[in-house]
Order: sequence, then structure tokens, then C-alpha cells
Amino acid sequence: MKRVLLTLSFDGTAYHGWQVQENAVTVQETLQNGLESLLGVRPSVTGCSRTDAGVHARQFCCHLDCDDAIPKEAFLRGLNSILPKDIAVTDYREVASDFHARYHCKGKNYRYKMYVGAIHDPFLKNYALRLDQPLDLERCQQFCAGLVGTHDFAPFSSAGRSVTDTVRTVSACNIIENKRGFELSVSADGFLYNMVRIIVGTAIAVSQGRRSPNCAKEIFALGKRELAGETAPPQGLYLNQVFYDLR
Amino acid sequence: MKRVLLTLSFDGTAYHGWQVQENAVTVQETLQNGLESLLGVRPSVTGCSRTDAGVHARQFCCHLDCDDAIPKEAFLRGLNSILPKDIAVTDYREVASDFHARYHCKGKNYRYKMYVGAIHDPFLKNYALRLDQPLDLERCQQFCAGLVGTHDFAPFSSAGRSVTDTVRTVSACNIIENKRGFELSVSADGFLYNMVRIIVGTAIAVSQGRRSPNCAKEIFALGKRELAGETAPPQGLYLNQVFYDLR
Repeated sequence: MKRVLLTLSFDGTAYHGWQVQENAVTVQETLQNGLESLLGVRPSVTGCSRTDAGVHARQFCCHLDCDDAIPKEAFLRGLNSILPKDIAVTDYREVASDFHARYHCKGKNYRYKMYVGAIHDPFLKNYALRLDQPLDLERCQQFCAGLVGTHDFAPFSSAGRSVTDTVRTVSACNIIENKRGFELSVSADGFLYNMVRIIVGTAIAVSQGRRSPNCAKEIFALGKRELAGETAPPQGLYLNQVFYDLR
Repeated sequence: MKRVLLTLSFDGTAYHGWQVQENAVTVQETLQNGLESLLGVRPSVTGCSRTDAGVHARQFCCHLDCDDAIPKEAFLRGLNSILPKDIAVTDYREVASDFHARYHCKGKNYRYKMYVGAIHDPFLKNYALRLDQPLDLERCQQFCAGLVGTHDFAPFSSAGRSVTDTVRTVSACNIIENKRGFELSVSADGFLYNMVRIIVGTAIAVSQGRRSPNCAKEIFALGKRELAGETAPPQGLYLNQVFYDLR
């Protein structure tokens, strides 16, 4: 047996997130089905994090234990030919037998895509959030800068998942303007439930003048969820990079 | 009553083409449902052409007769708020009472998107055709040039739709290379069933050396469907522009 770290990319539109659940198709279950066809046994697969329904991943990592028999190239080619075309396995790497995709993850980068238009773009329905008006970049950047550092991000998370330690370190947070609109990028050592989507909702509220560009300081100090903005919808969110220290 | 020309854009992934059919959701039926909600009556809507299941439109035109009461801006805003987000109505224009979206159409431009990659891109599953290898642009351009002009395009069409006159005039046909891959563009006064998809399939066969770059001449001369290439899949195809002579 060997432990393998797989890197995936997936369009989350058709899935109820990563994590296996009853009565809903998930990426984890679909991957396990594909691996069972390839390997003849159904391996247990452990992901780097959960993702919500409709959220996408340009890079998602998971580990599994499997037989030594299949070489890397054949494994990737075989698995990709079996998987539905909205999931791709882009890398395969042997790791130490105690490697863990979630516990050993050093950090992640998420992106959130927004486009500006008076009328919705049919081709972006599942891939970006429509904004009526451009963002006020200066106000948004000031807000983003206030998130960087080590803080208790509890007010930037939704109830519903029990985590005891809600302190996280955001190493970078920026909004850039591109051809179609805007993209928020945030890197941290870990993320709470809905944290990126609430950061985006708050950035939009800051842009629209419903929150102050300095609001992060007050939100951290008072720790109240209602001081932050709404939870932005899932379809604009992409898990973009997953960081590990691998030899 | 006034006759109105509507311009739409739609992501065809979820639809069985434009034309109403039993037991399948179509763009025409979805649009008529939206119009019925807006207008209180169900108008008959006539499209500029049919489209196949999974085919997209950046621009699609249709006409209908409706009440004078609703001004343009309110019509567009109202209809767009009712329609599902994979269909958008982008323009509304009053036309003469004898205007006909299909009969008065002077021509159309279609685009077909291809990308190059050893592994499929999950985000392009419904939006482009994957190629293992880049196209041979020189061979493809030579093939495309051979299509321009007035020809009997019967060998570039699929059986299944009864059209008596199969002569069409292609005014332009090109393949361009872009960041992700290639895009074929073809303009004509009219298109036969599957004509663009068979042109694309033949261009790929030409690129791979399975057909000669000059094959169009022979295909037109002999008129045999089997001399052309395969029918490329629908998801890369976009109706891009519809041309009318409007005062």
C-alpha cells in the first residue's frame, strides 16, 4: 500500500459540495465511485476541507491509500476517463504514510469572482456574482487590509459547524479589477464556515457605504456576526490553491 | 398591438434547444412562460432558427406581437427578473407588423470553441470541445477558404430535417488561435441542420491528415455526406450574431 495525494479541479455546479452526504451527489462520493471502478476496491478518501454546494475548486487536495500496482500515468489517465467531465484529477503524488490532507494543510487561497452588468450574463450564472455597479476599490482595499493578521474570525462565520478555536491568520487579502469585474483573493492558514462568502458580502457593504472601510476592527472587537455583511452566494467562490510543506 | 423583435442570449446547457417540444424543456417554452407572467397572456414567439440541445447563443432573435402598454425599459427589466438566469433578454425593438424573425434574417455568424489540453478542463465541460493536440492552422485555413462562396451544402448537413433547397452562401469562414485554443467562425445567409458542427468535424479531420486541405471542392462535387468529417459535439457551438436589414 502507498499513500497518495491527489489534486483535483472541479466545477461545483452539479454537486452538493465535497463531503459525502445522504440523498445528494457530492464530489467525494463521485471520486470514490471512480476510484472503485479503477482499483476494484472502494478506498476511503480524505479531503483538505469541506466545500459548500455550488462552490468550485481550481485546486482541491485529498489523500487515500491504494495498491502499489498502478503507475502514476495510468492512474491519472484511467481515473480521468472514468470521472464525469466536471471533475478532473490533475496531479498524483506519493506521500508519507502518515500524511493527512486536512491536518497537514498549511493554508489555502480562495478567489471570489464578481462581474458588473445591468443585465445578468447567462454564461456566468454558475460562475460569478453579478454586481449592478462597480465596486469602490479604495474602500474595499482598506477593508481587506483590516482583515490581515491573526484575529478571532467568529463574527465572519456562520453558525452550523462546531469549531472551538475560531482564531485564524489571514496572510493576504486583496480585490483586483479585471476585464469583466472584480476578484477578491484571500489567503489564510484556515477558514471558518462561510468565512470567504461573509468577507465578500462585507466588502460589498463597505463599497456601497453600508459599512465603514475600517469596520473589521470593530467587528473583531465586538465579535458580533450581525456587524459583518451578508453571506455572498456560493457560485462565485473558488478554492484556488492548497498549501503543503512536502519534501 | 405592436410587433417586437427581442434579442436574447442563453446558455443552452439546460435546454433541449430553442424549439418547443413535448417532454423536454426548451428556450422557446421558457421564454413564453416568462412572457405569459409579464403580459398576462401567452404570446406566440417565432425564432430566427432552431438550435440543438446544448448549443448556446450569444445573440438569438425572435419576434412576437404584444400589447402597447408596457414601455421598453419596464419590459426588459420585468422579463429579465422573471426568466431563469441562464437566459437574458438584451434588446427590445419595435418592428413593422409584417416583420418575420426567420424569413427576414439576412444571415448569421456562428462560433465554435475548442481548447487544447491533455486533461479535460472541468469548467469547459459544457462550453468548448477539448483537443488533445493543437490544430494545424495552415491546413485548417485552407479548408475553410474552400467553403466560402455559393455551394450545395447538402454533404455538410445531417439527415433529419426536410429542406428542399440546400444551396447556401458562406461569406466568411476562419479559424483563429486564442489563449486557450481555437475558435472557428463561419458566416452565411443560412445554415443547414448540423452544418457548422460538420464543418468543425471536417476541419479537425483535415488538421489530423484524415482529409485533404482541399477536400471541400471534392465534397461539393460528389455531394456525399460521408466524405465530410464527423459531427462535432454541440457544447462548443455558439450562435454569435443574427443579421437583419432594419430601417
